[in-house]
Amino acid sequence: MAEDRKFVKEVTDMEEDFPKWYTDVVVKTELVDYGPVKGTMVIRPYGYAIWENIRAELDRRFRQCGVKNAYFPMLIPESYLKREAEHVEGFAPEVAMVTHAGGEKLQENLVIRPTSETIICEMFSKWMQSYRDLPMRVNQWCNVVRWEKTTRPFLRTSEFLWQEGHTVYPDEEGALGDAMRMLGVYKSFAEEVLAIPVFTGRKSEKEKFAGAEATFGMEAMMLDGKSLQAGTSHYLGTNFARAFDMKFLDKDGTLKYGYSSSWGVSTRLIGALIMAHGDNSGLVLPPLVAPVQAIIIPIAAHKGGVTEKAEELRASLEAAGVRAETDNRDASAGWKFNEWEMKGVPLRIEVGPRDIENGKMTVVRRDTREKLTVDFGNVSAVSDLLSAIQKDMLEKSRKLRDSKVRWAETLGEIVAAVDGGFALAPWCGCRECEDKVKEAAAATSRVMTEDPVEGKKCAICEKPAKTAVYFAKAY
Amino acid sequence: MAEDRKFVKEVTDMEEDFPKWYTDVVVKTELVDYGPVKGTMVIRPYGYAIWENIRAELDRRFRQCGVKNAYFPMLIPESYLKREAEHVEGFAPEVAMVTHAGGEKLQENLVIRPTSETIICEMFSKWMQSYRDLPMRVNQWCNVVRWEKTTRPFLRTSEFLWQEGHTVYPDEEGALGDAMRMLGVYKSFAEEVLAIPVFTGRKSEKEKFAGAEATFGMEAMMLDGKSLQAGTSHYLGTNFARAFDMKFLDKDGTLKYGYSSSWGVSTRLIGALIMAHGDNSGLVLPPLVAPVQAIIIPIAAHKGGVTEKAEELRASLEAAGVRAETDNRDASAGWKFNEWEMKGVPLRIEVGPRDIENGKMTVVRRDTREKLTVDFGNVSAVSDLLSAIQKDMLEKSRKLRDSKVRWAETLGEIVAAVDGGFALAPWCGCRECEDKVKEAAAATSRVMTEDPVEGKKCAICEKPAKTAVYFAKAY
Repeated sequence: MAEDRKFVKEVTDMEEDFPKWYTDVVVKTELVDYGPVKGTMVIRPYGYAIWENIRAELDRRFRQCGVKNAYFPMLIPESYLKREAEHVEGFAPEVAMVTHAGGEKLQENLVIRPTSETIICEMFSKWMQSYRDLPMRVNQWCNVVRWEKTTRPFLRTSEFLWQEGHTVYPDEEGALGDAMRMLGVYKSFAEEVLAIPVFTGRKSEKEKFAGAEATFGMEAMMLDGKSLQAGTSHYLGTNFARAFDMKFLDKDGTLKYGYSSSWGVSTRLIGALIMAHGDNSGLVLPPLVAPVQAIIIPIAAHKGGVTEKAEELRASLEAAGVRAETDNRDASAGWKFNEWEMKGVPLRIEVGPRDIENGKMTVVRRDTREKLTVDFGNVSAVSDLLSAIQKDMLEKSRKLRDSKVRWAETLGEIVAAVDGGFALAPWCGCRECEDKVKEAAAATSRVMTEDPVEGKKCAICEKPAKTAVYFAKAY
Repeated sequence: MAEDRKFVKEVTDMEEDFPKWYTDVVVKTELVDYGPVKGTMVIRPYGYAIWENIRAELDRRFRQCGVKNAYFPMLIPESYLKREAEHVEGFAPEVAMVTHAGGEKLQENLVIRPTSETIICEMFSKWMQSYRDLPMRVNQWCNVVRWEKTTRPFLRTSEFLWQEGHTVYPDEEGALGDAMRMLGVYKSFAEEVLAIPVFTGRKSEKEKFAGAEATFGMEAMMLDGKSLQAGTSHYLGTNFARAFDMKFLDKDGTLKYGYSSSWGVSTRLIGALIMAHGDNSGLVLPPLVAPVQAIIIPIAAHKGGVTEKAEELRASLEAAGVRAETDNRDASAGWKFNEWEMKGVPLRIEVGPRDIENGKMTVVRRDTREKLTVDFGNVSAVSDLLSAIQKDMLEKSRKLRDSKVRWAETLGEIVAAVDGGFALAPWCGCRECEDKVKEAAAATSRVMTEDPVEGKKCAICEKPAKTAVYFAKAY
């Protein structure tokens, strides 16, 4: 099997400057552009198409769990935010505030939602009268605003797109069950669709969501060994129920508080895709989220029959459910190879006069650069290749990640492990030890694991360990 | 063929109080609830599912036209709004303004988009260098905020959901072509999917969009004879290009301004659906947008086999692409009939022990209340009925509307015609005459038609008519 050469030259090497590589990739592949207001991004059609694929597939999974979509107002009275003490402490510093509307100063300032627990719990409290009304389970796809000092496209932006699911149950079991169930949905989605292996588990008290009883997170390792929090799920207990008087009449005739959960993933997932799979030529997209799965490039298109054959192939691929496009632009084949390589299209298919004569087509895999000769129009070979790419990308990522996770039993070992990877360390569970790791290595606790730690000592303070936890530098 | 009786009693009669009828319907069917901030609405799952069906079908049509989705930031520098003189005059009075973010006063106030011409043209101007980059055609599905004094769910709310398409071409022909093409998309969508007949045409100078050269609208008659502007499409000429320095290098080597268009429809379409098709029992939904197309109600569900047969039917309907649900709740059949009648589900299917014994099922049409007996499990009969309902609803609406449109050659005739209907009148085209109609009948010009008016005099001032125009009271 031949190997294709590298075409792209305009992207900085990631070994040289990883942040610069990232910026080159997101801008040059036209995923995003910078908006006029600091920290905002324009999601261009190529980037938005990835988001649409993510959304469609996640939405299908939420529906299978019985969750329905709805839409709640974006503007929230400032007083709502203040009702839950931890919540306001966490979010007040980063909200954008509407003080004037319709030419007048408002009587009460409105915050643009940084998240919607407050307004949704207010509505839940209105809708739930009796235990018969429970559970309530809704999700919304929307924009949120969080004013951040340091921003980067997809990873941290003043405005971003996300989904936020919110559920309320008559008991802890139900709400905690949803928080765990949705963490599972996120994990299987990340692995099956984004081809990104993730660690999931409970977050430390320090890292949990403002207002939650418990936060569960999913962490993905990027190619530079840093961690990206790719999704979170919260068990909120009765914290918001108490703040919003969210009560119901139970079977026994008494009024009780509801137990709630919330869970979300955002356009950050696109950042994860880029930094988990990219290379020095640009993007490498898993087929299931790639806007274009197979790009057909006519070679010597001026020669008789080439354009027609390319179009015939595109139509038959499309009929088989493959997102295929033909690049008929007036440019050289080399220029097109460069462009689509950078854009990370899983398969490039070349159709030239000689191929047509021989009844063949040349197919090049973006992930491995393998060059194959396939019978012309063999659609199932193309579908099989796409499936293989999807599977191989996950395996490749998993191997790479696992090679960069090290068991660490001392602070020194943690410091060494988080230089380009994750440390998995026994931990006593206290905040002081987290702070020491932060100070020594600029790393934070990511998620706790179920790994047994009997007889182990905390890697930092040497007191008995209560859990094993991943430490990593994080985005 | 038998006729079903009416079950719903809790909805005000529309003949008695149309606005109250509307409010009863939107709230009691759980389409929406009122948000905590004045003028905002919560779109509940049943209402949001209608919006998702509208969005999916329109999105498909936009894609067929070659338009791609993208996402632009919601927060726009206040100065942008001021660059186009008419635009700022039109929108400044109703914007919501962010003055503080991240705990600090902003250097420049930000407006929440009331519409996105300004920010999108700013980005277009950055992206378009040469004629080769044109046309650019994008659409976004998003929320917008317009601070209105008088609000009603779906019809006029401080925040609403919509799509806004924006295109830029090297010439008038291209941009005007898109404005007209999209008006056509809206019209065919309204008629084929919403089953609402519409009048389309150019708007008067008085009624056009702030900043447009020409606005085209689509107007639907509601059951009370008033008009609802259900969608608009704008030819913007070079107005925004001049304001945002949106230039390209043409083939002849000179820098030229681009010509742009924009077009949008919103959650207002749900208001149109309600007021075009509803009745005194509540909603009547066209099958193509109904969240549930067929509701299966088990009769005497405790008897052996009924629940199983109902589920079997639901599964076979779903497999055939029918959105079917079974109502297995612990409530009487009468209560369920009431509920689903009010919710406007196109078909109710009753499955009871006697039906099962006879190999039959009872099917009731919501639009005509016809009661039919069909062979049990005859899926194609159900599909055929849904198609018939879709077609019949459009025809019924068209007949009713046409019976309420009157040709008017004097101001007196206009005044009479707009009392419960539309006037179609020859018009000189001047604003003074529009103002007179407004004063005399609280009606406004809706859209101009292509009907010939040679030799006709303006119904208001008696000068020679230039066009025929619809006048109506409007939402």
